[in-house]
Amino acid sequence: MSGFKQSDFEALTKGERKALAKGITLLESSRVDHRHEAESLLNLAAPLSGNSIRIGLTGVPGVGKSTFIEQFGNHIISQGHRLAVLAIDPSSTINGGSILGDKTRMQTLSTNPNAFIRPSPAGKTLGGVARRTRESITLCEAAGFDVIIVETVGVGQSETMVSDMTDLFLLMLLPGGGDDLQGIKRGIMELADIVVVNKADGDLKSRANLAAADVQQALRLVKPRYSYWTVPVQTVSSMESHGIDSVWNSVSEFKWAMKQAGDLENVRRNQLKQWLWAETNELLLAQLRADKRIQGSLEVLQKQVMNGEMTPSQAASTLVSILTKES
Amino acid sequence: MSGFKQSDFEALTKGERKALAKGITLLESSRVDHRHEAESLLNLAAPLSGNSIRIGLTGVPGVGKSTFIEQFGNHIISQGHRLAVLAIDPSSTINGGSILGDKTRMQTLSTNPNAFIRPSPAGKTLGGVARRTRESITLCEAAGFDVIIVETVGVGQSETMVSDMTDLFLLMLLPGGGDDLQGIKRGIMELADIVVVNKADGDLKSRANLAAADVQQALRLVKPRYSYWTVPVQTVSSMESHGIDSVWNSVSEFKWAMKQAGDLENVRRNQLKQWLWAETNELLLAQLRADKRIQGSLEVLQKQVMNGEMTPSQAASTLVSILTKES
Repeated sequence: MSGFKQSDFEALTKGERKALAKGITLLESSRVDHRHEAESLLNLAAPLSGNSIRIGLTGVPGVGKSTFIEQFGNHIISQGHRLAVLAIDPSSTINGGSILGDKTRMQTLSTNPNAFIRPSPAGKTLGGVARRTRESITLCEAAGFDVIIVETVGVGQSETMVSDMTDLFLLMLLPGGGDDLQGIKRGIMELADIVVVNKADGDLKSRANLAAADVQQALRLVKPRYSYWTVPVQTVSSMESHGIDSVWNSVSEFKWAMKQAGDLENVRRNQLKQWLWAETNELLLAQLRADKRIQGSLEVLQKQVMNGEMTPSQAASTLVSILTKES
Repeated sequence: MSGFKQSDFEALTKGERKALAKGITLLESSRVDHRHEAESLLNLAAPLSGNSIRIGLTGVPGVGKSTFIEQFGNHIISQGHRLAVLAIDPSSTINGGSILGDKTRMQTLSTNPNAFIRPSPAGKTLGGVARRTRESITLCEAAGFDVIIVETVGVGQSETMVSDMTDLFLLMLLPGGGDDLQGIKRGIMELADIVVVNKADGDLKSRANLAAADVQQALRLVKPRYSYWTVPVQTVSSMESHGIDSVWNSVSEFKWAMKQAGDLENVRRNQLKQWLWAETNELLLAQLRADKRIQGSLEVLQKQVMNGEMTPSQAASTLVSILTKES
């Protein structure tokens, strides 16, 4: 399949989900001719993009992200918005498929015409997945989705990546924790603009309140990201549908505060700069692998490294000097 | 501080922890002259390395990694081994410091002369942290540490990285879980050679057994990594010191099975190949940033991207073509 037509683009700008899905599929294609088409599409879409709040959302497995997003999403739509949910699953770079693509997730949300849910693209590198996601945000915005949630699994590198493409970072935690949780907080906390303690229901309600108090305490040790924003810590129960609306209120307040300070503009400009470097990185490696001058030495060097006759960094120096030598 | 002397290297090969620590500090330095020294040191150490079992260990925050490693480590040492624990904390790339460097962790282990514990290096990129860790493994082995644990936090990209530098991957889980946990399993499961359900103590004992049965069930859906190895799922209690020895037995059995099949050799050779590519990637970017021909266009292109006048991928193409153009 190829050929994203002018009529498809018009349908996309009218907010038709099918055309949007087709556009994202084009972005995800690794075929060179598709890539050229994708670039043209992005050039058309770029001027129509930007009018949204981009929310990054993360939490460890088991924290209940799907159920929360379903509730949260329905609330957002009930306020007159259109919501796109894009998922990043770092583990999909390993197994090729994506757990987050599971069709059974967010069932009521996915049937809503004002919601667009897209599972994680399978990609060989996290960088590749990041690129597709950033580009998908542009298309979703051009299609009139004015709230974008980029969801990710885990507490690793993918958080930084998601934080680098969103306006606001929402961290979900479980009630309780333990020493290790206290430990990780500081690093991830610096990214968080809103903290939500989920599963504040039934027996866990008091533990959730304790966890929230703990987090609040920990936040005092963290240098605030913005002088004008105090990170709120809220307890919610996706199961009992409680606290969902006040998370959305916090999001709206945050966006307002950021705009007032002129930071929404600044943050996005800096993100574009980072994106430029990420793209450059991807391209350089692709170029190296395709370089004819390298083909000859590559096999030999690789074998020497594998046999322990040369250290990887010595071999890397040799390869890079071939690519960059001026002659 | 610089100057890792011949006498330091001799002390290192005799297993002196102070010399080893000094060597790793040299590896972690970003000064160019230090880097040259580090390369020489690695060339000396490489022939002395390789005689160990390299264990990757991961689990979400709160799973109790520190307590487990302390117990597990003391058991390993009681069997006549020398143990090095290297930590990778992806969040340290954000805040510069490292939670895993906390001196209060693994207190009884850290005072044991047969244990060497090294916190996560602070690094700007995950790639940089990976390089230092791989190189640290080489040094630890040259210093006679024959069990290496590379510990990481989270369920993101860092797992793949750790799996790429170890012989065996140990996944720690909490009792219980929930739908999302069921979801993530498949991706991470493909990496796991041994699964440990921690906190099988007190009230949680029966939940831990249920979780173990669940995981065992899930593992049936996963393509086995090696035909000759069935991934064991074991419950342990670090608190009640139960099950620790049988995890070590599994590690020993795994190593034996891998050696029998000739795979230990194969896996390590492939890892060296991957390492070569990781090094190449790092070097290329460094080169690009330092390239004089690029300095002029860089500012202009960057500004155009930040103002939305050019897409990041267009600008990236321009930059890369400058670096690689033949003239």
